[in-house]
Amino acid sequence: MTKAGLAGVVAPVLTPFTAAGEPDAGRFVEHARWLLAEGCTALAPFGTTSEGNSLSSAERKVLLISLLAAGIDPARLMPGTGLCSIPETADLTKHAVELGCAGVLVLPPFYYKGVSDEGLYRYFASLFERVADNRLRVYLYHIPPMTQIGFSLPLIERLCRDFPSIVAGIKDSSGDWSHTKHLIEALPGLAVYSGAETTLLSNLKLGGAGCISATANVSARLLRQIFESQGDAEALQARASAIRQEFQSGPLIPAIKAVIAHHRSDPNWRNTRAPLEPMAGVDATKLVARLAALGFEFDHRSTA
Amino acid sequence: MTKAGLAGVVAPVLTPFTAAGEPDAGRFVEHARWLLAEGCTALAPFGTTSEGNSLSSAERKVLLISLLAAGIDPARLMPGTGLCSIPETADLTKHAVELGCAGVLVLPPFYYKGVSDEGLYRYFASLFERVADNRLRVYLYHIPPMTQIGFSLPLIERLCRDFPSIVAGIKDSSGDWSHTKHLIEALPGLAVYSGAETTLLSNLKLGGAGCISATANVSARLLRQIFESQGDAEALQARASAIRQEFQSGPLIPAIKAVIAHHRSDPNWRNTRAPLEPMAGVDATKLVARLAALGFEFDHRSTA
Repeated sequence: MTKAGLAGVVAPVLTPFTAAGEPDAGRFVEHARWLLAEGCTALAPFGTTSEGNSLSSAERKVLLISLLAAGIDPARLMPGTGLCSIPETADLTKHAVELGCAGVLVLPPFYYKGVSDEGLYRYFASLFERVADNRLRVYLYHIPPMTQIGFSLPLIERLCRDFPSIVAGIKDSSGDWSHTKHLIEALPGLAVYSGAETTLLSNLKLGGAGCISATANVSARLLRQIFESQGDAEALQARASAIRQEFQSGPLIPAIKAVIAHHRSDPNWRNTRAPLEPMAGVDATKLVARLAALGFEFDHRSTA
Repeated sequence: MTKAGLAGVVAPVLTPFTAAGEPDAGRFVEHARWLLAEGCTALAPFGTTSEGNSLSSAERKVLLISLLAAGIDPARLMPGTGLCSIPETADLTKHAVELGCAGVLVLPPFYYKGVSDEGLYRYFASLFERVADNRLRVYLYHIPPMTQIGFSLPLIERLCRDFPSIVAGIKDSSGDWSHTKHLIEALPGLAVYSGAETTLLSNLKLGGAGCISATANVSARLLRQIFESQGDAEALQARASAIRQEFQSGPLIPAIKAVIAHHRSDPNWRNTRAPLEPMAGVDATKLVARLAALGFEFDHRSTA
C-alpha cells in the first residue's frame, strides 16, 4: 500500500545555501542520504523547513533531479509542490510524478485569506485535472501558522470522497494535538502525519502514519526508534520532545541549520535564504550545549 | 519626476478568465484601455485585485506583453512582481523593467510569518542586486491583511536611505488611515498611495500620491474628478466612499467582476480563478441595484 510505504519518520529536508545564496546541491544530496541512513522512512524536500517557498520552481526541479541522480529512490520521496497558482503547482507536481515520486505535499493556495471551502475544493479539483496522471498521490499540507487558511474536515472528506485514489494523506502542522487526533479518528483511510515529533508516539498508537517534522533533520535516528517501538518508547518520546522543545526556543529553521553546522564543523550550513536569517553564533553555541545536556546525539558519519 | 508621473488614480487591473479558467488577454487589454480612457493615471496589473498570485509567471509575462502590443505606454504601468522567492521575483521584475515599465509593485515574501526587518531588508537588497538595472523603480506593497507581514517604518526608511534611486513609493493597504497618514508625513520623498479611495481626498490634501484601489476598476472616472478637484471634491469623495463601501459588503474581487459582467452584458466577466469564487447571480443583481441608488455610473463605451 502506498500509504504504508511512506509511513514513519519523514524529514522535510533542509536546503543548504552557498555563501552567495544559491542552493547547494552537493550538501543537499549528502544530507538527504544521511537522513535515510539515520532512519528516515521517507523524505519531503521543499517543505517549510526546506525554505521551499524561497526557491524558484526551476531550483526545486534541479535539486529533486540531483537526489535521483545520487541514487535516492523516488518511491521514498514526497516533495513539496504547493504554490499559490494552479498552473505552477500543476507544473511542479507533474514534474515530481513523472520522476516517479511516491507522493507530493501540497499547500493550499496561501496568498488570499478567508477563502471558502468551495473555492479550495475547486482549486484542488482543477489541479488534479491538470496533472492528469493516475500515479498522482497527494498529501495535504495543513499549516495554518504559515498559510492562515487550512483544510477543514468537511473539505478533506469531500476531497477524499471525490478523489479517493489521489488524496493519500495529510500533514497536520496546526500545532494542536486534539486536531491531529480528531483527523486520525475521523479519517481511518487517510495517512495522518503529526507535524512535529512531540506527538509521534501518540500518533502511532492511534493508527496515524507518523510524523513529518522539521527536527527529523537532526533527530531521525531517535524518532525511528520510537516508530519501531524499540526499548522504552515512552522514555524515547520524552527525550525527543525535550530536544524538539529546545530547538523551538528561537526561530526553528536557523537553529537546526546552526546545530548541523556545529556538528559538521561546516559554517556554510548556517546559511539561510532571506527573509530567514542565520542564527547568531553565540546563540548556536548555547543551544548546542543545552541539547548535549538532554542527550542529543549527532553522528554525521552514518551512510546509507 | 517619476513619482509624479504615476501619481493619481491607479487601478490594479482585473484579470478576466475564460470559462476554462485561462487568462483572457482580449478582455484584459480591452479593460486596461477602458481604464485609461476613464481617467486612470496608471495601471497596476497583477495586484491582489488582479488575482495576480493565482497566475503563473509565464501568464503574467504574456499578459503584460499583450498590453504593450495594444499600444499601452509602459510609462503608465507598475505591474505586481512580488512572489515568495528572490529568483522568481527578480525574474518578473527584470522582465517588467526591460519592457520599460515605469515601476513595479512588490510584495514582501509572504510565506513565512514573524520574519525580522533584517531578513526583509536582506530580501530586498538581494532582489535589487539581482535585477541590477538602474531603471528599476520599486513600489512597496504593504498589505498585512493578506501577507500578515509588512513594512515597518524603520524598514522603509532604511530601504529609502540605502536605495534612494530605487524605492519610489508604497501602497498602503493596511486599511488604517492613521498609518497611511503617518507614512505621508514621515516620508515626504516617497509616493504614498492609499490602498482604497475612501481616503483619496485626505491623501491628496496631505501631499500623498493618490490611491491604488480595487474599485478603481469601476470608479476611475469619479476618482479622477476627485484627483483633479473638479466640482465639490468633498461630495464626490463621499459618493466614491459610499460606492466602495457597497462593493465591500461581500468578497470584493468577485463583486467588482460581477458588476462589470452586468454592465457589459458579458457573463464571462464573472469568472474568477480558484480559490476565489464568482459572485452568485442573485447577489450581483442586488448589488447592482444598491449601487444605482448611490449614483454609480458605468459607461463601457469610453475609449482611450
